[in-house]
Amino acid sequence: MAYSLKDQVAVIGVGCIKFGDNFDQGYEEMAVEAAFAAFNDAKISPDEIDAAWLGTYSPAQGHGKAAVSLGDALRLYNKPISRVENFCATGTDAFRHAVLAVASGIYDTALVLGVEKYKDRPGRGLAREGVHPYHNDGSTAPGLFALAATRYMHTYGLTRETLAKVSVKNHYNGSLNPKAHLQKKVTPEEVLTAPIVAYPFGLYDCCPTTDGAAAAIVCRADLAKKYRNDYILVKGVGLSVTSGRPFMDPNFDYLGFKATQHAAAQAYEMAGIKDPLREINVAEVHDCFTWTEITNYEDLGFAKKGEGAKLIEEGRTTLTGDIPVNPSGGLKSFGHPIGASGVRMVYEIVTQLRGQGGQRQVKDPKLGLVHNVGGPGAVSCVAVLGQP
Amino acid sequence: MAYSLKDQVAVIGVGCIKFGDNFDQGYEEMAVEAAFAAFNDAKISPDEIDAAWLGTYSPAQGHGKAAVSLGDALRLYNKPISRVENFCATGTDAFRHAVLAVASGIYDTALVLGVEKYKDRPGRGLAREGVHPYHNDGSTAPGLFALAATRYMHTYGLTRETLAKVSVKNHYNGSLNPKAHLQKKVTPEEVLTAPIVAYPFGLYDCCPTTDGAAAAIVCRADLAKKYRNDYILVKGVGLSVTSGRPFMDPNFDYLGFKATQHAAAQAYEMAGIKDPLREINVAEVHDCFTWTEITNYEDLGFAKKGEGAKLIEEGRTTLTGDIPVNPSGGLKSFGHPIGASGVRMVYEIVTQLRGQGGQRQVKDPKLGLVHNVGGPGAVSCVAVLGQP
Repeated sequence: MAYSLKDQVAVIGVGCIKFGDNFDQGYEEMAVEAAFAAFNDAKISPDEIDAAWLGTYSPAQGHGKAAVSLGDALRLYNKPISRVENFCATGTDAFRHAVLAVASGIYDTALVLGVEKYKDRPGRGLAREGVHPYHNDGSTAPGLFALAATRYMHTYGLTRETLAKVSVKNHYNGSLNPKAHLQKKVTPEEVLTAPIVAYPFGLYDCCPTTDGAAAAIVCRADLAKKYRNDYILVKGVGLSVTSGRPFMDPNFDYLGFKATQHAAAQAYEMAGIKDPLREINVAEVHDCFTWTEITNYEDLGFAKKGEGAKLIEEGRTTLTGDIPVNPSGGLKSFGHPIGASGVRMVYEIVTQLRGQGGQRQVKDPKLGLVHNVGGPGAVSCVAVLGQP
Repeated sequence: MAYSLKDQVAVIGVGCIKFGDNFDQGYEEMAVEAAFAAFNDAKISPDEIDAAWLGTYSPAQGHGKAAVSLGDALRLYNKPISRVENFCATGTDAFRHAVLAVASGIYDTALVLGVEKYKDRPGRGLAREGVHPYHNDGSTAPGLFALAATRYMHTYGLTRETLAKVSVKNHYNGSLNPKAHLQKKVTPEEVLTAPIVAYPFGLYDCCPTTDGAAAAIVCRADLAKKYRNDYILVKGVGLSVTSGRPFMDPNFDYLGFKATQHAAAQAYEMAGIKDPLREINVAEVHDCFTWTEITNYEDLGFAKKGEGAKLIEEGRTTLTGDIPVNPSGGLKSFGHPIGASGVRMVYEIVTQLRGQGGQRQVKDPKLGLVHNVGGPGAVSCVAVLGQP
């Protein structure tokens, strides 16, 4: 088979709430604010939505369990609505489903809503639900990613000083972004002397726990002009799932994630991208930890394996570099409410492609990338968005 | 918009394990058996599967939480795999997603796998997970459906004797089906004198708690002949979500489910069906309780509201009637492992349309229907399958 999409689907509206410790907003309130921001952005009425996808990873008491959480929040009734869940790629995969649905010709328009509530509930996703293959041995996301990061440091000579530069860059970008969770700059010294969470990751190498919601509206590309002239095309989507136990896989080299490599290959094939470093102008990638951003550079084809650190060392992924990465502030600074993150990244890339990034706007991007990896390492979803 | 599908997608393989108290099979073992039955049925290699969808409603320790549960069970790696969850319509909605995906032109083939393990785990879905809006007040599925059934009985004069006929019919069909959970006939007397679960439902008015797995493989219709000559076309799919709290909705009349009515309307529009009673030749509908089957007759357009009981009274929905319903034995006799049920119904309708139903085969069906309703009452998914 050959993956093809043929510019059939456009993004006509995006919305994102202020991420953070949203103790003043419940799950439904965040959902409503994000969705109506997208409705207003697209100048579309909720009645015109043909189908919807909800991305929530961690359901809790009375919300997030199923599609009805979206329907009831928005009073969007008598429509096809589904919930998708795919670890940390939940939001991007929900977006992918809306794209598939519109490309199928069955629906003209679709809503994607990513919502996650973590700050006023007992515990958080994995351990609370008792369903994650790792939790019995006490392994956590920082612990598992740290195993890979230390192996990578040993193999390629990466240092904590270089990791800190990812944190400094993303915190700087977030300081320019009024919707980010942590709008503060950090210095290399602050990063390097922060309490260690799991070596080599200190507090500022880790993304925070955050509440948030984001939404996007896609439609048939041939109908997009009905809504706006500056619509954005979906050029490709990719999803790949490896073993749910990559850290137990004897073939896992701890140096990067196959899931990202395969998801990117699918999306690049659809988008006709041969040289991602030169062709992609802006990227939102999954920086759950500083090391993850560096391995993502490689797995996404921006650098050869083992050479990702050069991009951050040479400043090429800053707002003014040739391949700006995480202009939003990334998971590190914007926060990572799991089901919302991928949709929030779509929001950021669409905003950048429209030239509406304000202080964090990168220069004239034509093609942008959205990437999540989760599981940890088991699943990755990639979307490529571009100017018509 | 107009819902359209245009005979783009075919079912080329189905598989179903023996449903029951499968204490000798774990989640992964059931998944593998169902999936390989479908691979063998389609004469397709797992390598040829382009994308997959997993339908599991109730994840438990170490399985079912995400797409990796399918990938690891089948060693199906480096592919796009997603998990869908939509209450009791989970399996049908997973099938719908595979149909959308192939119709999009992005994937040539897709696997749908529905799996659910209930019999050797603590508790069952709703209460255990603590996320269902009803569980705090002690309401259960039998209790909620009983509220509607008693209202319906009061309004239309339906009796427990008529409800019992649904049970007798479905148990009879199940007695002919070697894969059904409860392969035993029951008499009207046995049904009417069984212990009451929630009036008007006695034990034999309720579907059992069951383990099971089923799989289906869809592909581009223009490629179907590569795999088999007797492929089946997907003529329509519909999904509708109403409030997740229909029993708290002041406008809910307790006499039927809007979700079913709207999902059926979507699928019928795609399939060009104007008169479902005459055009559909065989149906698998969601008989979680005997009353549900009767209200389904009406919500699916086989009878006017209040007149569904006539179909069972007149024997029209038996194996030899003009609109055989639940030839498999239905949820009542085949069992209802939630995520598996919708896919199992696709298995049954494909088997019937191929004329491979054995002792339970209905006469020369050309068009068949699959229906689930869940939530309770909040969500419904309908698929129409037909001869090319």
